[in-house]
Amino acid sequence: MTRMQPDYSVYLVTDRTLCVSGTLEDVVARAVQGGVTMVQLREKQLCTREFVELGRALRALLAPRGVPLLVNDRVDVALACGADGVHIGQSDIRYADARRLMGAGAVIGVSVESVEQAAEAERCGADYMGVSPVFATPTKTDTSAPWGLEGLRGLRRRFSLPLVAIGGIGPDNAAEVFEAGADGIAVVSAICASPDPQQAAATLRAVARGKRRAAAVL
Amino acid sequence: MTRMQPDYSVYLVTDRTLCVSGTLEDVVARAVQGGVTMVQLREKQLCTREFVELGRALRALLAPRGVPLLVNDRVDVALACGADGVHIGQSDIRYADARRLMGAGAVIGVSVESVEQAAEAERCGADYMGVSPVFATPTKTDTSAPWGLEGLRGLRRRFSLPLVAIGGIGPDNAAEVFEAGADGIAVVSAICASPDPQQAAATLRAVARGKRRAAAVL
Repeated sequence: MTRMQPDYSVYLVTDRTLCVSGTLEDVVARAVQGGVTMVQLREKQLCTREFVELGRALRALLAPRGVPLLVNDRVDVALACGADGVHIGQSDIRYADARRLMGAGAVIGVSVESVEQAAEAERCGADYMGVSPVFATPTKTDTSAPWGLEGLRGLRRRFSLPLVAIGGIGPDNAAEVFEAGADGIAVVSAICASPDPQQAAATLRAVARGKRRAAAVL
Repeated sequence: MTRMQPDYSVYLVTDRTLCVSGTLEDVVARAVQGGVTMVQLREKQLCTREFVELGRALRALLAPRGVPLLVNDRVDVALACGADGVHIGQSDIRYADARRLMGAGAVIGVSVESVEQAAEAERCGADYMGVSPVFATPTKTDTSAPWGLEGLRGLRRRFSLPLVAIGGIGPDNAAEVFEAGADGIAVVSAICASPDPQQAAATLRAVARGKRRAAAVL
């Protein structure tokens, strides 16, 4: 079975508590209109039943638009709501278990906080690495030392797996993250906390497109 | 596929925070020596990776002894660690989703807090009902009004599904819970918080056996 080759370029990670312009569904719908290419549902507070229902609502919104939906950590929620994959951190379910349960066609990304973890993610067959955090960020407080642009460049030189950078990325620094070798930028507050999620997504997508055109010219 | 017909009679629900006599694995091992017939791993604090590892450790302990392992709420953890089933509450994954993901052979129990929920549990094909709570209990604070022995008798008259009573059950009231129609008693603190989990389980098992002998005589 061939896995889909997703477009990681503008990757929205949800945070209901940051949404200022409407419900999470509203924010995701507008972000997709603006050009988000992938959505990860991250939810640490909801009970399983509500988590699955929210996943189903996002799936119904995203599937007709061809935008893949991943679920953070929870394979049960991903399977129940028909998500395209999961994103797992180093304290979440192990990659081998996630792959076995999700199937060969699922997209599975792994957060990496060290070169050793990056090597393991590539070795085990993950679809992409979440380079976490690339910059210091107030959204997650349980993270390790930032990779920085130099760390991202080092990963790019060493590994062929798609790199999705996360942590402290917004319109002002997105271009340099792409230039350092990221295939995608994952954002939380840059879209969720924006008063205009569609415009925020469109701005990031324009940066991503500009970076691709630059790469095509080289 | 035929589902196993488990012995629900002495059903241990885990709580790591209450274990006074050793680790959770120690407590479960000694409880099984004492006569526990089923174990439900309930865990709200651990990250998924540790939850799966704990499930695997219990599975390795229980499977050779023929004692089924269920996981509370988390189908992903149950599938990853090879548990025999799941127990779901009214805010957990829906029964239909749990059955689809766990397969026809899994044991799936549903907590019921009203006659309507009990009717739904029987209608949808659950393996047993968790009658919750039968008595008021300090272990769970988010529960609804207790069923009491009269409520349990009412469920017994009305439904044929196995009834597992939970909440405030210990050696002093276990016999009357069986007499009111329970197929099993689920306990948390009566075993986990006991200084001698083996003896605590043996006492409850003796009550369960006495009740069965009495039923066979009738």
